[in-house]
Amino acid sequence: MSKKADIGLIGLAVMGENLVMNMESKGFSVAVYNRTLDKVDAFINGRGKGKNIIGTHSIEELCASLSRPRKVIILVKAGNPVDAYIDSLLKYLDEGDVIIDSGNSNYTDTIRRTKYVEDKGLYYVGMGISGGEEGALKGPSMMPGGSEKAWPLVKPILQAVAAKVDDGTPCCDWVGQDGAGHFVKMVHNGIEYGDMQLIAESYSLMKNLLGMTADEMHKVFSEWNKTELDSYLIGITAEILNKKDDDGLPLVDKILDSAGQKGTGKWTGITALEEGVPLTLISEAVFARCLSSMKNERVEAGKEYRIERKPLECNKNEMVEDIRKALLASKIISYAQGYALLRSAASSYGWKLNYGGIALMWRGGCIIRSTFLGKIKEAFDRNPEITNLLLDPYFKNMMDTLIPSWRRVVSASALSGISIPAFSSALSYFDGYTTETLPANLIQAQRDFFGAHTYERIDAERGRFFHTNWTGEGGTTAATTYSV
Amino acid sequence: MSKKADIGLIGLAVMGENLVMNMESKGFSVAVYNRTLDKVDAFINGRGKGKNIIGTHSIEELCASLSRPRKVIILVKAGNPVDAYIDSLLKYLDEGDVIIDSGNSNYTDTIRRTKYVEDKGLYYVGMGISGGEEGALKGPSMMPGGSEKAWPLVKPILQAVAAKVDDGTPCCDWVGQDGAGHFVKMVHNGIEYGDMQLIAESYSLMKNLLGMTADEMHKVFSEWNKTELDSYLIGITAEILNKKDDDGLPLVDKILDSAGQKGTGKWTGITALEEGVPLTLISEAVFARCLSSMKNERVEAGKEYRIERKPLECNKNEMVEDIRKALLASKIISYAQGYALLRSAASSYGWKLNYGGIALMWRGGCIIRSTFLGKIKEAFDRNPEITNLLLDPYFKNMMDTLIPSWRRVVSASALSGISIPAFSSALSYFDGYTTETLPANLIQAQRDFFGAHTYERIDAERGRFFHTNWTGEGGTTAATTYSV
Repeated sequence: MSKKADIGLIGLAVMGENLVMNMESKGFSVAVYNRTLDKVDAFINGRGKGKNIIGTHSIEELCASLSRPRKVIILVKAGNPVDAYIDSLLKYLDEGDVIIDSGNSNYTDTIRRTKYVEDKGLYYVGMGISGGEEGALKGPSMMPGGSEKAWPLVKPILQAVAAKVDDGTPCCDWVGQDGAGHFVKMVHNGIEYGDMQLIAESYSLMKNLLGMTADEMHKVFSEWNKTELDSYLIGITAEILNKKDDDGLPLVDKILDSAGQKGTGKWTGITALEEGVPLTLISEAVFARCLSSMKNERVEAGKEYRIERKPLECNKNEMVEDIRKALLASKIISYAQGYALLRSAASSYGWKLNYGGIALMWRGGCIIRSTFLGKIKEAFDRNPEITNLLLDPYFKNMMDTLIPSWRRVVSASALSGISIPAFSSALSYFDGYTTETLPANLIQAQRDFFGAHTYERIDAERGRFFHTNWTGEGGTTAATTYSV
Repeated sequence: MSKKADIGLIGLAVMGENLVMNMESKGFSVAVYNRTLDKVDAFINGRGKGKNIIGTHSIEELCASLSRPRKVIILVKAGNPVDAYIDSLLKYLDEGDVIIDSGNSNYTDTIRRTKYVEDKGLYYVGMGISGGEEGALKGPSMMPGGSEKAWPLVKPILQAVAAKVDDGTPCCDWVGQDGAGHFVKMVHNGIEYGDMQLIAESYSLMKNLLGMTADEMHKVFSEWNKTELDSYLIGITAEILNKKDDDGLPLVDKILDSAGQKGTGKWTGITALEEGVPLTLISEAVFARCLSSMKNERVEAGKEYRIERKPLECNKNEMVEDIRKALLASKIISYAQGYALLRSAASSYGWKLNYGGIALMWRGGCIIRSTFLGKIKEAFDRNPEITNLLLDPYFKNMMDTLIPSWRRVVSASALSGISIPAFSSALSYFDGYTTETLPANLIQAQRDFFGAHTYERIDAERGRFFHTNWTGEGGTTAATTYSV
C-alpha cells in the first residue's frame, strides 16, 4: 500500500457507507474499517468497487494506511463502543492526529473524551451530523466541536462534503470547544421533535376539528410549503399525505399512532431542566411521544371518558389559515427557547457560540432545514447578542400578525377536546414571557410561610431578602437547611 | 456516661434541632453532634437544657453514646457531606447498626449508598422528610426506604414522631428498597411544585382576568378550603392573602414575582423524561419558576409586545367557580401523573411500592397534605394496581363534573393572554390521554420517511414493523444506526 488515504472511517452501517461515498466523490481517498470484517469486504467489492477506498481489517492497519496528520471518523452507536474505539486508536495514532466522533454522543461524554484525548497529545472532534442517510450521501449538516487546533486539519474535507446553502456556504462550521458540537446537535434534534409535534398537531386539528381528509391536507401542506413555513419537514408531510397504500387509500391512515424516540429529544429537555431554561415546547413534544406510545391505556381511557370531539362549526378556510399562523407562532417560540438553551449552555460551559453560524449550519442538509432558519441567521446578523429571538424586530413584527389566530386555535382546541400540548404550551410561554408581573410573588410568600425561604420586595433593592412571621407563631429565623 | 441514648443525630440546623426536640418529647433519648461544635453546646445549654439529650463533640463520641443496635440520623446538606459522614460513621459503628440519611438526597445516591453500607454489614435508610421546620417539631411526614431489615429497628421511633392522620395512623411507613424513600420524597416535592403553581395560576386568573383584590381572594381561598380542595397549601394561601404590610396594604402585593427552586422539582421532571412518563404539569411548574426568575427579560419583552390583558366581561362568581373546578381537575392530573411516575420507577428499580400507603404518608404532616390524598388512598384501596388515577370511579365521576369549567377557563386564558401553563398542559394531557387515536401516525411516517425508522400498522399485529419507500428513490432498507 503505497498511497496513503486522506481520512479513515470506522463503522460501515448505512450512514457510514454513505459518508464514505460522499467523501470519495469529493476527491478524498478513504480507508475504512468495520468490526464485522465481512462488511468491509462487501463494501469494497460492492458500492466501493473501483473507488478511491481502502478496506482494512484491523485498527492497526487502518491507522497505518492514513497520511499524516491522521484523521479517523468513528461512526458507531453512542456509548461504550466510542470509548473502546478511542482506546484502540490511541495505540496506533500519534501526537497531532485527530479522532472524530460523528455519532449521536451525549455532549457530556464528548467533554470528557476531549480532555482524555488531548491529555495524550492528540486532537478530538465531537461532531453532530444531521440529514439522515440521504444527507450523509448527498451533503449533511455537520456540527463539529472539540479541539480547536483540529479544525484547520479537518475543515477542507468536512466543508467539501457538507450540504451547501444557495450561495454555496457549507452547512458546516466550527461550533466551539469540547462538547459544543454535540450540544448543538442535541438541541437540533430537540427542535426537530418540536417541529414534528407542531406539524402533527396541525394535522390533528385539520383532521379532527375540521374533518379534513388526507388529500385535502396534502394540498394544504403543499401550499404552506410556499409560505414562511417552507421547510423539509413540511415538504415531506405533504408527500406523506399524498402516499397511497396498496388499496388506494391514504397510507398515513394505516399507521399506528405510537411514536418512538431515541433519546436526544429527551436529553434536550433534561438539559433545559438542569440549566433552568424554560424549554416547554420541546419537553411537551417529548412527553407527547411518550403518551402516544401508551396506546392501550389511551384506548381504555377513551372508552371510559367518551369525550365528544366533533368538528367545529366554522369557516374551514379561515380556520386552516389560523392553524398555519398558530404553527408559525409556536415554531418561533420553539426556536426562541432552543436558542435560549444554547446561550445558557455557552455560559455554563464557557463556549463562544456563533448563533448565526449555527442557524446557517441548520439552514441546509439537516432534517429541520428551512427558509425560517435563514431569518434566524439574519436576526443574529442584526444583533449577535440578542437575548431572545422574540425581541428581534422581524420576529416581533411577524408575531404581531400571528397572535390573534394563535389564540383562536388554542381556545377552540380547549373547548373541543383536541390535544395540542405544543401549541398551547408555546402560548403559555409567550404570555408568561411578555408578562411583567407573574404570580410568582404568591409562590415566594408560600415558600417563606412554610419554609422560611425569604423573598425579595418590589420596593427594595434586588438581592435583599425578607422573612415574615406569617402566623405570629414560631420563629422569625430564615431557613438554613430545609429545602423544597 | 452510663445511660446510652436511643438514637443519634448529626446536623443541628433548625430542622435537626426540631427533630431532636420532637423525638425527645416522645420519650426517646437523643445524642447529638454538629460539625461546628459551638452549636452542640449552645443547643444543650439552650433549647435542649434539662432534656434527655446528650451533646457529643466527635463522631466517635456520638457512636459510643448510643445503645445497640445503634441508629444515627444524618440531616445535613445533600451531596458529598453525606458520603463523608457515612465514612466517618463506618469507622465507629458495627455490623447491624443503622445509618439514616434524612436529607433531600437524590435517590440515585441513596441506591448507591445503600449498597455501599450493606456491603459492610450495616443497614442504610434513605428517608425523605416533609413538613418544614414546624413539621419536624410537631410531626412530619416521613418516607423511609433502604435496608428492609432496618425497618423494625427504627419503626418505633419514626412512627412515634411522625404526623398522625385523624384515626391515629402515622404518616410514616416503609416505602421500599434502597432509593425508594427518597424517590417518593422527590415525587412529593414535584407534586408540591405543581400544587403551588396551580394555586398561583388561580390567583393570577382572579387578579388579572377578574380584577379581584387580595381581600376578595382571601375570602375565596378560605371558602375553597371547605371544599374538596381542603389542604394545607390552600389554607396558607388564604392566610397570606389576608396578611397586611406595615402600611396596611396586602403584603403579597409587595413581594417580587421571582420564585426560586432548590432542585427536587427539577429532578422529578428529569426522572420523568428518563423514565419516558408524561409528567407535563410538574415540568411546566418547574419551568414556570425558571421563567419567573427572568424578571428583567420579562419586563423588557412586556414593553416590546404590550399585550393588552384586561379583565374579562363575565359573571365573576361563575368564573371563580370555574377556576376552582379547573384547579381541582388540574390537580387530579398532577397526582395521576405523579403516581404514574411512581409506578414506572417501581418497575424500573424493582420496588414494591404501596401506593395507598404513600398517599397516607402524604395525608398529614407534609406540605401537600390534604383531604384529597385521603381520596387517593381510597382509590388504591379499591384497586391497588390501578394504572392511572383517572380511571378510578371516584375521580372519573368528579372529572365529569369539572371538565366544562376547565375548558372554559383554559379557553378564556388563551384569548385574554393570561399565562396558565399548568392548567393548560393538564388539559392537553387529559385530552391526549383520553384520545384513542393521536396524530403520532404522522410522526411515525415522517421518521420512516427521513430515517427509515419503520412503523407499525393498525391492521397488522403489534411488534411487526414496516418500511415504505416514500419517494420511490433510494433504498428500501430500514435504518440501523441513524438515530433521531
